[in-house]
Order: sequence, then structure tokens, then C-alpha cells
Amino acid sequence: MAQKVKLSTIAEALGLSTATVSLALRDSPLVAEATRERIKEEARQSGYIYNRRAASLRTSKSGIVGVCVHDIMNPFYGEILKSIEDELDRHRQTFILCNHYDDLAKQRAFLDTLLQLGADGLILSPAIGTPASDIHLAETNDLPVTLIARTVEGSGVTSFRGDDTYGMSLVVRHLIEEGHRKIALIGGTEQTSTGRDRQRGYQNALEEAGLPVRPEWWIKGPRSRHSGFDAASAFLDLPDRPDAVVCFSDLVALGLMYGLSRAGLRPGVDIAVCGYDDIDEAAIAMPPLTTVSNGQSEVGHRAAGALLARLSGAPAVEQVELIKPELRIRRSSFLKHTGSEPPQS
Amino acid sequence: MAQKVKLSTIAEALGLSTATVSLALRDSPLVAEATRERIKEEARQSGYIYNRRAASLRTSKSGIVGVCVHDIMNPFYGEILKSIEDELDRHRQTFILCNHYDDLAKQRAFLDTLLQLGADGLILSPAIGTPASDIHLAETNDLPVTLIARTVEGSGVTSFRGDDTYGMSLVVRHLIEEGHRKIALIGGTEQTSTGRDRQRGYQNALEEAGLPVRPEWWIKGPRSRHSGFDAASAFLDLPDRPDAVVCFSDLVALGLMYGLSRAGLRPGVDIAVCGYDDIDEAAIAMPPLTTVSNGQSEVGHRAAGALLARLSGAPAVEQVELIKPELRIRRSSFLKHTGSEPPQS
Repeated sequence: MAQKVKLSTIAEALGLSTATVSLALRDSPLVAEATRERIKEEARQSGYIYNRRAASLRTSKSGIVGVCVHDIMNPFYGEILKSIEDELDRHRQTFILCNHYDDLAKQRAFLDTLLQLGADGLILSPAIGTPASDIHLAETNDLPVTLIARTVEGSGVTSFRGDDTYGMSLVVRHLIEEGHRKIALIGGTEQTSTGRDRQRGYQNALEEAGLPVRPEWWIKGPRSRHSGFDAASAFLDLPDRPDAVVCFSDLVALGLMYGLSRAGLRPGVDIAVCGYDDIDEAAIAMPPLTTVSNGQSEVGHRAAGALLARLSGAPAVEQVELIKPELRIRRSSFLKHTGSEPPQS
Repeated sequence: MAQKVKLSTIAEALGLSTATVSLALRDSPLVAEATRERIKEEARQSGYIYNRRAASLRTSKSGIVGVCVHDIMNPFYGEILKSIEDELDRHRQTFILCNHYDDLAKQRAFLDTLLQLGADGLILSPAIGTPASDIHLAETNDLPVTLIARTVEGSGVTSFRGDDTYGMSLVVRHLIEEGHRKIALIGGTEQTSTGRDRQRGYQNALEEAGLPVRPEWWIKGPRSRHSGFDAASAFLDLPDRPDAVVCFSDLVALGLMYGLSRAGLRPGVDIAVCGYDDIDEAAIAMPPLTTVSNGQSEVGHRAAGALLARLSGAPAVEQVELIKPELRIRRSSFLKHTGSEPPQS
């Protein structure tokens, strides 16, 4: 390799000051666009590698945003991440990703790393039990935070998520309209705002219709495809077994449908099953899954947009931005003995 | 917040030199372990935030490893990533993740970012068409690279992946032993080493058994669940339609099974379907999916281990480390009219 190309080499070649070259390489609007392009082209051709570390010490901008969620392998988070990625890409921010698996220590270690690197901001779906003080720590150390999917009371920052209570009531009302009176809830936990809100939506819809809420019909815990599969046997053992199930998420519903099928029950024929999130797979599943679109793409875009606004100086505001969910009716929620016709998809 | 705590504050409090404190916070073995622990405890209590950016300019170690794959939402990569994460966590390396979606420009932009940040290394599943020179660029700029899942000839570095040719021949032989003579291959492409190797394994097994290889029975392209689902109609239109299918991946097979079911064909009853990778979902799918375990966990652990060795000074070696795949026989590959008994799982 040739010797290291310096700013001054590029400046000399173009007859410009090193300050102009430096500003142009950081994309400063203080340099005319045509000049910026000429400088960048020269830098590329000469093999100059912009040293962002050195630059970040001068400008206190690292160009790095942290993204931390429960588990990126969950397509719900994956779909949010895709839209965050779109937004950050367009603003030339690199992101560092971390799965916290609801382990507070892992989340804190990541927070420390971001602080140590001088990262610009954090988009966080907070681990169960995250105290507001963890978010205050970031904010006080110039690391603006935007929350997604879950809320932390007293955090002082904005959270973007679906209106889970409303969304869950939509799908439970649909099952009631289809003639179901005994409806189980599978998955979720009281420990997350999402779990509590979805349970509330389930309960609201039952109470509205004058139906009893039976605590033993909430099988708590499952949040993955595998645990949904495992929950099939617990469901089959329920007292006075319901003939309809609404699940905490599509993943749980898809796993449950595998488990029920293995036990000889046909989802959409012998038992109605609904999910939540409307991940890509829901529409092609067998049977296609009735679910609630949870606006993953909108959550991601708006959360990233809000964080970028914070980086440009917008103040922190504690509020919850609710994205309106929509019911997606498909075949899994229809039984052969009910009157209405499932959609042909 | 209190005023910023400096190295000298900690040094004074403990009666040590700032150099000792600095070394201890970087975990240098030059400081006795008990002293290191005492210094770290004091740093924690006083609220000192270690400035890794400033430190990295001094030591040229950023503590960051880049990981770049086609798409982390694909559970095959997700499972590899989990074991990379384990390994890097234990060595206190932070990782930056990037999906390249087989877009060379996106992969290059990420490479530039790593170089600009002064990252320590890169674990890469190279995008289709990656030239060896892109890897040389990284290596010449002190960014050691380890490849996973795919190979780039002439790269000069080590690649960890399953023995795809052997693995695919295992599953095709299984179908032949079950009495199938007409076997389609769905998914993959000649543009990746993985696609070429798996096709070769399919072809080898057919030729060994004296069966013809019919090019029209390879439906190229599908690599996702959705495209596997879409491929069902192309499969149903095949001339002299096969009654067995081996898919490029489990995701393709799982999507195909959804598509075939929707068309009224029962996988494992009317048509034998096999996948490749043995992702978590394969064992609980309906029917459970016959597939090939591709050693994701081993690939991740060994690739991360090899990169860490490079960071400690091990030289670059161009070689392919093949992980031995294993056949996993489940119900999806059995037809009702064949003689043998599917496993009871």
C-alpha cells in the first residue's frame, strides 16, 4: 500500500485549504456542493481514509446510533429494524445492534459501550424492569434515547408503539362477532407494558360483550414460536376448554398452530386461532393467520426520525406516540360450523 | 450530574499513578488483578466513564468487531450470530451489525465505516460478487477478516462453513433410499458458492444412483420463506412433475410446504419435502421437516474464535474450514405409499 494520504495532500492537489477539505469530507453545508463532490472524488481516487475517530474527538459526533431490542431474530423487531435502517442509512448514521434478551445487565453493558464510544443516540426497546434512571443516565451523558415497542414511566423521553389495548380488543371483538364465547389468551406477561396492554384489550372486549374473564384462560409466558408450540398441550388441558384462542404475537400463534395440528386439531376448522403483529409470514401461513397489523414499519421510521431530530437539537419530551393498529381477517379465525364466509386468500 | 471524574481523581483517591489507573481500566495484565479490580470498583463508584475513543487513538484498539451478513432476519444467520455474540461477549468486544442484502455497495459502505472507526476486525458472509480485492483492502488497512457461510477465492483469509456438497448428497440419497426417482431442487443460485455446492451435492447423489439430472427440475432463485411459498405454483407446473423436493434451505422448504398445502397437496403424505440447515423451527413444523444440520453454532463459535486469534497476532491463512453436516430425518420426507416408517416425533 502507498503511504497514508493526508488532508493536506488532497488540499494541495486541489488548491484548497485543509479546513475546506475537512469540512467537505464531513459533508458540511459550509462548502458548496460542487466543491464537496470534487473533494470527495479526489479523496476516493487518492485512497484517503477519513478518520472518523479523530474527527469525532473534535466534533463530538461519532456517527453511531445504538439499537437495542429483546431479540432481533423475532421478525416483529426485524421488521422495525428494517425501517430504522432505511432512515439511518439515508442520514449516514451507522448503527450498533445489541440483543438484551431481557437481561438488564446486558442492556447496561451496551449502554456503557455507547457512552464510552461517544455514540450519538440510542433507540431502545427496554428490557423488562428497566428503571427510568438508566435512561436518565444516558440522557445526562449526552446520549439521547428514543423508545420503541415498550414504555418506561418517568423516562422523560418519547416512546413509539402500537396501541396494543385497542388492537387486541379489535381481534377479540372479531372472534365474538364470529360467535365465540370461550376465548383463551396465550402468551405475554404482566411484566411488560405490551403484555399488560394486550391483556387489557382482551379483557375490555370480553367485558363489553358481557362475557366472563376467566383468569385460568390466560396462559402466561409464551413469546416465541417454540413456546407457542409448547403451549398447545397446556391449552388442550384447560378446564372447560375454549374453541378460540388469541395469541400475544404471530410467532406464538404460528407455533401454537403447529402444536395443535400435531395433536390432531385443525386450526381454522376445529379451533379459531388469531395472532398479533401481522408479520410477513401471517398471510402465507397454513391456514392464513387472522391478526392485527401493528405498524412495525411506521414505528421504526418515526422512532428513527425522532432520534435524528433530537441529534439536531430537538428537546426530550416524555410522551407515548401510539400507532393505530388494524385488523387483518384471514382463515385461521373461522370454524366450519360458524355461518360467515372466510376471505378467499 | 457531578463534574466529570478524571483518571487523576481515581489515582489520587487510591494513591496510585494515573498510568496504572489507565492500564487497569484497559484491563492490562501489567497491573495485578486485585489492583485492577480495586481501580475498577473505584471508577464505578465515582461515576468515571472510560473514554474508549480517546483510548483507541492511543492503542489503536477500538474494541469493535463488524459482522456483515445477507440478512440477519434469516434464522440461519441469526443462529450463527448468536454464537458469534457469545464468543465476542466473553472477550468484551462490541459488534456492529450490517445486513448487505447482497448489495455490494452497501457492503462496501459498511467496510468504509469500519475502517473509519478503526474497528478491530470483520466477520463477513460476503455479498454475491464480492471481489477478493475488497477483502485485501480491509486486510491491508489492519482490519482482519474472517469469512462465514460463503467463500471468496483468492481472498487470502479463512472461511468457515458447512460442507454443502456432502450435506446435500446426504439428503438426496435419503430420498432415493425411500424409493423416489424424480426429485426436484428448489432454490439457490449459481452466483454463490453455497448455491453451486448444494447443486453439486444434489447432482452427485442422482448420478451415483444412475438417475438422470434434468435441468428443468432445478427451480432457481428462492432463498426466503416467501419465495419458497411462491415457488409452489412453479413446481406444480413442472413437466413430468417429481413427487419429492429438496430445498436450498429450511426457510424455502417451510414456505413451499405452506404453498403446497394451500394448493391441496399434503407434504409428507402426497409429496416428500426436505430442507437444509436444521433451523430451530424444522423440528416443530407441520409436518416436522427432514433436513440437514449445518452446524450454525459451530460456524459462529469457530469463526469468532479465529478472528480473535487474528486480533492477537495470528497470521492470515487462506483456507476453507468445512463443518461436517448431519442428516435429520423427520416426517416431511415420507409418503404414505412408501414402505418405511417415519420417526415418531
